[in-house]
Amino acid sequence: MRLKLVNIKEIATYDPDSDSVSRVEKQELLITDGKITAIGSNLGQANTEIDCQNCLVTPGFVDPHTHPVFWQGREIEFARRIAGATYQEIAAEGGGIRSSIAGVRKADYQELRQAVKNRLNRFLNLGTTTIEAKSGYGLSTESELKSLEILADLNEDHSIDIMPTFMGAHAFPAEYADDPDQYVDLLCEEMIPAVARQGIARYCDVFCENGYFSVAQSRRILEAGSQAGLIPRLHADEFEDSGAAELAAEMKAVSADHLMAVSGEGMNAMAKAGVIATLLPGTTFFLGQHNYAPARELIDRGITIALATDFNPGSCHIQSMPFIISLACLQLKMTIEEAFTAATYNSARAIGMEAKIGSLTVGKQADVIIWGIKNLMEIPYNVTDIPIRNVIKSGQPVFRLD
Amino acid sequence: MRLKLVNIKEIATYDPDSDSVSRVEKQELLITDGKITAIGSNLGQANTEIDCQNCLVTPGFVDPHTHPVFWQGREIEFARRIAGATYQEIAAEGGGIRSSIAGVRKADYQELRQAVKNRLNRFLNLGTTTIEAKSGYGLSTESELKSLEILADLNEDHSIDIMPTFMGAHAFPAEYADDPDQYVDLLCEEMIPAVARQGIARYCDVFCENGYFSVAQSRRILEAGSQAGLIPRLHADEFEDSGAAELAAEMKAVSADHLMAVSGEGMNAMAKAGVIATLLPGTTFFLGQHNYAPARELIDRGITIALATDFNPGSCHIQSMPFIISLACLQLKMTIEEAFTAATYNSARAIGMEAKIGSLTVGKQADVIIWGIKNLMEIPYNVTDIPIRNVIKSGQPVFRLD
Repeated sequence: MRLKLVNIKEIATYDPDSDSVSRVEKQELLITDGKITAIGSNLGQANTEIDCQNCLVTPGFVDPHTHPVFWQGREIEFARRIAGATYQEIAAEGGGIRSSIAGVRKADYQELRQAVKNRLNRFLNLGTTTIEAKSGYGLSTESELKSLEILADLNEDHSIDIMPTFMGAHAFPAEYADDPDQYVDLLCEEMIPAVARQGIARYCDVFCENGYFSVAQSRRILEAGSQAGLIPRLHADEFEDSGAAELAAEMKAVSADHLMAVSGEGMNAMAKAGVIATLLPGTTFFLGQHNYAPARELIDRGITIALATDFNPGSCHIQSMPFIISLACLQLKMTIEEAFTAATYNSARAIGMEAKIGSLTVGKQADVIIWGIKNLMEIPYNVTDIPIRNVIKSGQPVFRLD
Repeated sequence: MRLKLVNIKEIATYDPDSDSVSRVEKQELLITDGKITAIGSNLGQANTEIDCQNCLVTPGFVDPHTHPVFWQGREIEFARRIAGATYQEIAAEGGGIRSSIAGVRKADYQELRQAVKNRLNRFLNLGTTTIEAKSGYGLSTESELKSLEILADLNEDHSIDIMPTFMGAHAFPAEYADDPDQYVDLLCEEMIPAVARQGIARYCDVFCENGYFSVAQSRRILEAGSQAGLIPRLHADEFEDSGAAELAAEMKAVSADHLMAVSGEGMNAMAKAGVIATLLPGTTFFLGQHNYAPARELIDRGITIALATDFNPGSCHIQSMPFIISLACLQLKMTIEEAFTAATYNSARAIGMEAKIGSLTVGKQADVIIWGIKNLMEIPYNVTDIPIRNVIKSGQPVFRLD
């Protein structure tokens, strides 16, 4: 089965060989049995041709930090926050993460699966062909396993590829408010072994921050995860410098995420250990704040940056990687090439998938976006108008799922 | 010809009678010969019914500040700015507004018309059913008249309604750099009379700012415009307090726009004179800055706020009013109801059209958005994912123009 993309204005992709963004004009792209088999001129006959209407072609986006397994949106709480309510007031009204936890625990499997599936459709329509997806709105053994089961189920059934992460350490459930260490015991002694037996999750994530999971608690959880075969990754130093970046380095985590308050020592430790910094500028934006992560400092220290949406119902209800690229350019002061690389190849690295996806390279899986614009620069220049004409996943056109 | 919208979850609209946002559930909306003729239950038979799939219905957005008559995007300059180039460097490379001026002057009428038409299609697809649109990238009598002629031509030919503004005082063309007052003479003595004879423009706009058109020059231009029948409006106090808000009050301008640097005195003068403040948070965002206009102070002083995109190729390449509403909530600290009103009814007031459009009120033109979401709060909550199912302009479905 040969599919050929013709009449391409520009193919833009990070090129691992030259370690730079390549932008070539007037080439064709040949896909054979779901893989990229040639990029060049006069590539011969194919079963199907797609006319790219003299427009841009890029790899599909890889989003390495999402929380899509929740029951309902929290737009009421959003409206309360916009109108000036405090977190305390919202929590007292039954809002905040606890409402999401109640929702997932109560939700019927099929209905929750359908809600998540609708969100996967939207990711694909926005050009995202692979996501990392976390559990973490159940916080009981049963509901965390249910969340991961839904991700595995949809990974089979849906075009998008999902890399599942167990995040029972997302928050302390209300029933453990008085004895948080008892919840850490539950995580390490019951939940992680059960997740390992279930065999779905690839990563173990912890919200490591003063006032949430301490460095000591996070270390214990990530070590238990490691022993069960789950690769560590962290929510690190989002609100204040809590030493989480250093823990990420110590644990050889694949990625430390957020990092708005990371210290110089934390950055140095990450650089030395080769931890990827996954930045989530959508969250800063969605919270109406301006304390964006120090992207240029991270880059200057030689740390690889990946970009992700952090899609979740509370602090970042954004699914668009093109918009995250705009934010990276405008707020993180990354160049367009840096942001584009961070949203494709580096984000594939942040989930250990760069050998298979993240660039338009012969031999890789054919995850491709066909745009309605002419060149790479127009992606952030268009900000919120996402002119995508077609999305191809593993060689199959999949755009406009409803 | 009767068109009925059925199976509506929520109709959200500013209600002029109660001076508040009304949100009613489970009503139908009847359109007869392009006008709203009833909102309620059991509205009887119609020629056509549209099933709103238990979703939200709102008025179409009114965008009261746009600059759509330009030749090409300036994404190369955007990329240079993101990479750290200064305005001086960009100008030296042939970028900035002067490249747009060269483009419009040289452009073939039909090709320029087509470029503008494509942008109008995008406005409509994003739910904007009426725009104010400025000339101002020609800055010669001939090219300003050409720009206005294209707007009049497309207003006839295109579903979107256009309120045209003459803005020859957008910048000083290079040929008058050494003698700016001579360009003011040209504006007042040749261009404004020619624009008046042409009979297309309804408004006259000036970029009143220290280093651009001074208060004295702006007053002279707006007075010449007034005498020729053009209603004054201003770009005011965008970079620094230049006394432009006071001039807007003195001239009884319908609207003063931008206002990031407006003074207390300027606000008091606007309040007293009833000048509308049209805020453009997309520009602050697109420039990567944080000096958003003082929306709450303006509201506290009793000034009516309208929201607009400022769509233009240099400082704000954003066409989405839903995203502007998000920015208003997150950055201007407006409530959802305030931002929604500012993007519909108040923005209709900012172009003198509130008797005809800007709310879903019996007797008004049927400019309607049918959404893929359930309620008003989800518009800003979705940020960049604009789930619009259908747009109705003067009673005609017009969504998905290419």
